[in-house]
Amino acid sequence: MIRLSQYFLPTVKEDPAEAQIVSHKLMLRAGMIRQASAGIYSWLPLGLRVLKKVEKIVREEQDVAGAQEILMPTIQSAELWKESGRYNGYGKEMLRILDRHQREMLYGPTNEELITDIFRQTLRSYKDLPKILYHIQWKFRDEVRPRFGVMRGREFLMKDSYSFDIDKIRARQSYNRMFVSYLRTFAKLGLRAIPMQADTGPIGGNLSHEFIILAETGESEVFCDKKYLNFDPLAEKLTYENNLEKIVERWTSEYAATDEKHIVAKEKELGSSLLHARGIEVGHIFYFGKKYSKAMGVTIAGPKEEPIIPEMGSYGIGVSRLVGAIIEASHDHAGIIWPDTVSPFSCGILNLRINDQNCCKTCEDLAIKLEKCGHEVLYDDRDETAGNKFAVMDLVGLPWQIVVGPRGLKNGVVELKRRDTGERNELSIDSIIEKLSPKN
Amino acid sequence: MIRLSQYFLPTVKEDPAEAQIVSHKLMLRAGMIRQASAGIYSWLPLGLRVLKKVEKIVREEQDVAGAQEILMPTIQSAELWKESGRYNGYGKEMLRILDRHQREMLYGPTNEELITDIFRQTLRSYKDLPKILYHIQWKFRDEVRPRFGVMRGREFLMKDSYSFDIDKIRARQSYNRMFVSYLRTFAKLGLRAIPMQADTGPIGGNLSHEFIILAETGESEVFCDKKYLNFDPLAEKLTYENNLEKIVERWTSEYAATDEKHIVAKEKELGSSLLHARGIEVGHIFYFGKKYSKAMGVTIAGPKEEPIIPEMGSYGIGVSRLVGAIIEASHDHAGIIWPDTVSPFSCGILNLRINDQNCCKTCEDLAIKLEKCGHEVLYDDRDETAGNKFAVMDLVGLPWQIVVGPRGLKNGVVELKRRDTGERNELSIDSIIEKLSPKN
Repeated sequence: MIRLSQYFLPTVKEDPAEAQIVSHKLMLRAGMIRQASAGIYSWLPLGLRVLKKVEKIVREEQDVAGAQEILMPTIQSAELWKESGRYNGYGKEMLRILDRHQREMLYGPTNEELITDIFRQTLRSYKDLPKILYHIQWKFRDEVRPRFGVMRGREFLMKDSYSFDIDKIRARQSYNRMFVSYLRTFAKLGLRAIPMQADTGPIGGNLSHEFIILAETGESEVFCDKKYLNFDPLAEKLTYENNLEKIVERWTSEYAATDEKHIVAKEKELGSSLLHARGIEVGHIFYFGKKYSKAMGVTIAGPKEEPIIPEMGSYGIGVSRLVGAIIEASHDHAGIIWPDTVSPFSCGILNLRINDQNCCKTCEDLAIKLEKCGHEVLYDDRDETAGNKFAVMDLVGLPWQIVVGPRGLKNGVVELKRRDTGERNELSIDSIIEKLSPKN
Repeated sequence: MIRLSQYFLPTVKEDPAEAQIVSHKLMLRAGMIRQASAGIYSWLPLGLRVLKKVEKIVREEQDVAGAQEILMPTIQSAELWKESGRYNGYGKEMLRILDRHQREMLYGPTNEELITDIFRQTLRSYKDLPKILYHIQWKFRDEVRPRFGVMRGREFLMKDSYSFDIDKIRARQSYNRMFVSYLRTFAKLGLRAIPMQADTGPIGGNLSHEFIILAETGESEVFCDKKYLNFDPLAEKLTYENNLEKIVERWTSEYAATDEKHIVAKEKELGSSLLHARGIEVGHIFYFGKKYSKAMGVTIAGPKEEPIIPEMGSYGIGVSRLVGAIIEASHDHAGIIWPDTVSPFSCGILNLRINDQNCCKTCEDLAIKLEKCGHEVLYDDRDETAGNKFAVMDLVGLPWQIVVGPRGLKNGVVELKRRDTGERNELSIDSIIEKLSPKN
């Protein structure tokens, strides 16, 4: 149990002037983040809890898909980027650095070169493949106008995976594997993401999908068939035992494209079935074949000792951006409404009379019982008005609120409120424990 | 269960030429890390597992001590460092960066300024104190000669905590709290760390202790009373309910100092009781009063609305360095010997005959049973010689090895080996499960 009286949760009543979009406003107001410098944020305890939950879900789904976690550093040598030919072309978004010996370094915006170098140093045989390696690490892109809080920051947390295969067919299988894992990941996060045909930009290659959350405040202009609104990943068997190609076929069967890839003629055909909307990019996957492996001279030995240049793909999820995206998709006038899977705490307890022994004892007993059945509890034991407590608890958006006051306790009840529906019920302590216990 | 045949574990037989000390050699040989550029490493799956275990113990002990976790960014604005007066003086170890708008930025080597700025933005009243905030984040120090692998790298993972108090007495209590938490942390990691009087360097202040592991390959020259060799943190009640000042008094009662602080006269007095040795710094704590809060103009309101400038301290643990330090303290000619608390897997299963159905079934059943009682299993199912399997398992240093071969299975037994003692026993599967089950 965390006691709010001691917790570092600097909430703010008014909308901060620096923020334009709702997720940025709410993250500042709910004491989740503070700006350190333009486009660079410190994560305070409440924000960090959410970031870690998102990260955990992303990690679990990578592991289930058979990807293996490593951790590459943030600072890279420019040498590798010269080998791949991207160093000069990458533009001003790359943060370039000279170290004390005047060596050219950079803060990694992505890791194709470094992972290819690791592969080159360590793997020798076709027997070592397939391999999908991933890491979750801070990246830096020196945006000319960072804005929208963590949605378009300069320093951001990204999960990036890299696949290595011996031929095109198997590379496509790895691509499908990551495609399905992304559907599963976003569904677990309580988000509806639509895979759309996308431009490959500086990563390269000719096959690429962006996973897009529809949201008015999204930066991307997107075009898709309204049929996608009825696609439900939770209703489908998105497991790796199934035919992955069929799943990918189904999810790419209708028209869906980002701004750079949209085709006006197709949209005219669709007519009223066309959805022209704005969206937030939360994932982006690429197949680019031998672009890096060839440029960096990677070969492994095939079954007959013949040299094979591996086929590669890369797969990114914006972990810190997702925190903002989830809030964009799930909030109301009073504050954030966390999906259960990523909520910083599952349950808040509001003590309306902190100098009443019975209230205090009830709250603490309740917290202990809830923790025993797996809940994470934030206990508002502050010397504040009931109004302030209600407002803060709505703002920080925990799924369940339990209000404990002297009047209810006289009748043996406390109030249970569900944040998303607003439903309230007066219940006994035992009924609350039963209701909030995990079902078998 | 992780199958070694698919695991990304690029082990190496021979000592790499680039490594001088045993931990660096073994981390490269055991496929834990690979160099990305001078003093900068990528952590491969096995290394990352250990890094995360160390991080987890450090985090748990911070949480138990009442510190609250946040996450500050790696890139900071130079402005804050100009406010504190450290920007120009810090020297070439600071990695200085110009962003695309020619703003002066830097890769944080430490975070006193940034945390003070967060405090200044968010806290207003003496009621908000005491607070101890910490984060676990990558730091960069541009060492002129990075060496010894992760022991003295340029990009490294550090846990740094910062305490804020309203007066000197309470600040000292926070210092004691972190002192005790460090004793607990290092003991849990299987290390014997001696707190020594230390120089405060660029952090500042006049009270400071380094926590030192004795090791021949250590970079620090240290001087201490041999009595410390008999101090055992595991035998003492290092809990926060006890009088923390007494614990600190006891652990600082004998002479112990680093090179910069040692006193020749005292050492002469000690005579044969003096230990003059080499050590590895794994933690460093500082009390520096108002150095940063005053320079950066931080005040909070006291009980009578009077302005109070908070008293601060900072407390660092080298998380990535610890991985190397643990290996320096625990290895033999055959490889690493992990303490149980940080081992990447608790148990290795060696299948000596992968084309024998009975061997395979026994190994897989065993793995499932061990996982059910909380073990993490690395299963060597590779098509390799027995000798290679023994060598790799000894190299990667898991506490328990279980060798499954057709000869033993005929008699219903497999071999259980303890890595640290080398003790071997032939046991039935049931006996192994019983022996390796957690005791109540």
